[in-house]
Amino acid sequence: MSRKEIAFRLAARPDLPSIVRMLADDELGSQRERNEDPLPQAYYAAFEQIDIDPNHELVVAEWNGEVIGTLHLIFLPSVSFQGGLRAQIESVRLDKNYRNQGIGKEMLKWTIERARERGAHIVQLTTHQSREDAHRFYERLGFKASHLGMKLSLK
Amino acid sequence: MSRKEIAFRLAARPDLPSIVRMLADDELGSQRERNEDPLPQAYYAAFEQIDIDPNHELVVAEWNGEVIGTLHLIFLPSVSFQGGLRAQIESVRLDKNYRNQGIGKEMLKWTIERARERGAHIVQLTTHQSREDAHRFYERLGFKASHLGMKLSLK
Repeated sequence: MSRKEIAFRLAARPDLPSIVRMLADDELGSQRERNEDPLPQAYYAAFEQIDIDPNHELVVAEWNGEVIGTLHLIFLPSVSFQGGLRAQIESVRLDKNYRNQGIGKEMLKWTIERARERGAHIVQLTTHQSREDAHRFYERLGFKASHLGMKLSLK
Repeated sequence: MSRKEIAFRLAARPDLPSIVRMLADDELGSQRERNEDPLPQAYYAAFEQIDIDPNHELVVAEWNGEVIGTLHLIFLPSVSFQGGLRAQIESVRLDKNYRNQGIGKEMLKWTIERARERGAHIVQLTTHQSREDAHRFYERLGFKASHLGMKLSLK
C-alpha cells in the first residue's frame, strides 16, 4: 500500500457507521458502543454538534475509498499558559486490518501538524492505563506521560 | 467562614486578573504565566473565545466580594460512548489563603453537579504526576486514576 493513497479529511454523516464500527471493535469500546444497523440516533445527534463546531474536527483516514481510521481533534481555548490554545485528541482508532503498517503513526503526525497549523501550544490526550502499546506508540511520537488521567463516571 | 457565603458563577472579564494571579501562584504555573499589570492581551483574547462558547464555563468561586477560586469546565460532544457528552475540568486553583477548609471540595462538588445537570456521562481531568495531594483529593471525590495523561509541547 502506498502511503500517498491515504487521505485525511473531516468526517461526514455517512462515515458514522464506519467510525462506530471501529470504536466498537476494541476491548474497551465493545462494552460501551452499540454498533447496530441503523445506528442509534444518539450517534447522529452527537455528530451534528461536533460538525457545527469549528473547534471540533472529527477526522477519518481513507484508503481506496474505505474509511480505515478515525480520531477526534478538539481545540480548547484556555486562560492558562498565557491564554494558550490546547489541542486534544480523543477516540483514536485504526481498523484492525490496517495495523502495524505505520498508518497510526501517519495519522498522529498529520494531527500534530494540524494542531500546530491552528496555533496550539500543546497536544494532549489520555490513554487507558491498560493500553501499554499505546503508551509506547505515543512516547515514540514525543508525548510525555506527565499526567494522571482521572475519570468520574456519572452513570 | 460560612459555606453559604461562597458563590459560584461564570467569570466575567474583570475577574481575569484574579484568575491569572491564582494560575501563576503555583509551583508549575509560576513558570508559564505572566501575572503583570496590565495583563498581556492574550489572556483577554482567550477569555473572549471562552466566553462566547456555551460549551465552555470559566467558573469563579467568590467569597465576601473576593474571587478565591477558579476552574474551567468544558463540555465535549463525542461520538464515543454512544454519542455521550463528556465534561472536562481544567485549570483548578484555590487561593492559598483559603485552602484546607473544604472549599476545594465544595468547588468540585458544585462542578460535578453542574456536569450532571447538563447531561454529561463522565467528568474527566488530568493532574500532573507530581501533584500527589491532588490525586488523593480527586480520589476522595470518586475519580479513578484509570488513564495516563500524555502531553506533547509544540513550542
